[in-house]
Amino acid sequence: MGARIRGRTAAPTFEMQSTDEDFMRRAIALAQQAEDAGDVPIGAVLVSGDVVVEAKNEKEARPDATAHAEMLALAQAARLLRSWRLSDATIYVTKEPCVMCAGAMVAARIRRVVYGCPDPKGGAAGSVLDVVRHPALNHRIEVTAGVLEAETAAQLQGFFRKRR
Amino acid sequence: MGARIRGRTAAPTFEMQSTDEDFMRRAIALAQQAEDAGDVPIGAVLVSGDVVVEAKNEKEARPDATAHAEMLALAQAARLLRSWRLSDATIYVTKEPCVMCAGAMVAARIRRVVYGCPDPKGGAAGSVLDVVRHPALNHRIEVTAGVLEAETAAQLQGFFRKRR
Repeated sequence: MGARIRGRTAAPTFEMQSTDEDFMRRAIALAQQAEDAGDVPIGAVLVSGDVVVEAKNEKEARPDATAHAEMLALAQAARLLRSWRLSDATIYVTKEPCVMCAGAMVAARIRRVVYGCPDPKGGAAGSVLDVVRHPALNHRIEVTAGVLEAETAAQLQGFFRKRR
Repeated sequence: MGARIRGRTAAPTFEMQSTDEDFMRRAIALAQQAEDAGDVPIGAVLVSGDVVVEAKNEKEARPDATAHAEMLALAQAARLLRSWRLSDATIYVTKEPCVMCAGAMVAARIRRVVYGCPDPKGGAAGSVLDVVRHPALNHRIEVTAGVLEAETAAQLQGFFRKRR
């Protein structure tokens, strides 16, 4: 996995997209685990070299409003890599990150964020705010939006439909 | 402490300001502990009813970019109160919160944030962004700025001067 990620820029477009989809599929499986535990289904995978970290939304399970999947992935990756600075990391998340998570990605100097469906109500990677590419902040992040968008959107819509 | 907080709205202005300063002084002491441990001196106190939670910046100590004082206070308070929703809470922090922390305060539905000195480079309670009073987000937070501003600014300036 790490080797494929490192070779990304030289790889043909088809393989690049395929790799993003692989990690997003894993994030969707983690989101399902969150739903099974009573949380909104959101999952995240962080990849930095050979290190791959997986996390799911645990807001209700803990309970803790800061326990979004992306936050848990960033904290775990920093522990494993023994550095708060994650400049080589790409984070995959099923939904566009909120303001907190986007701010955390900037704080951790993440290189790239890949998300599934947009969040028109609270998204901070372009929808409501663009924290990850804000000209006044000290770091900007490459954004790839809409990877497996239909599947990630359907997963969230299914969850909220069941809840009503 | 909890009782004084609950009676805050009926108390005369002098007492109200005094209470804010008391908690800010405690936050300054926590910031000193962060500096002693090799971190940028930032401290936070969260007050919700009788529950008072204290935290310091632990970004370098862990290491973890998400381990800002405010984030640790929010997570600890949620565990203690067994709820991610902290609607009665006031959070005191020595420096204006960053985007991540301001977003976390919105996510936790914090009632009020009190900070010491502004952060013109990254502050998200009015300086660079105003996340805590953003009209498009689902919660807005009362802001009291500049409590013990000179002391909190001097603490940070002293730290960065020593580092150069």
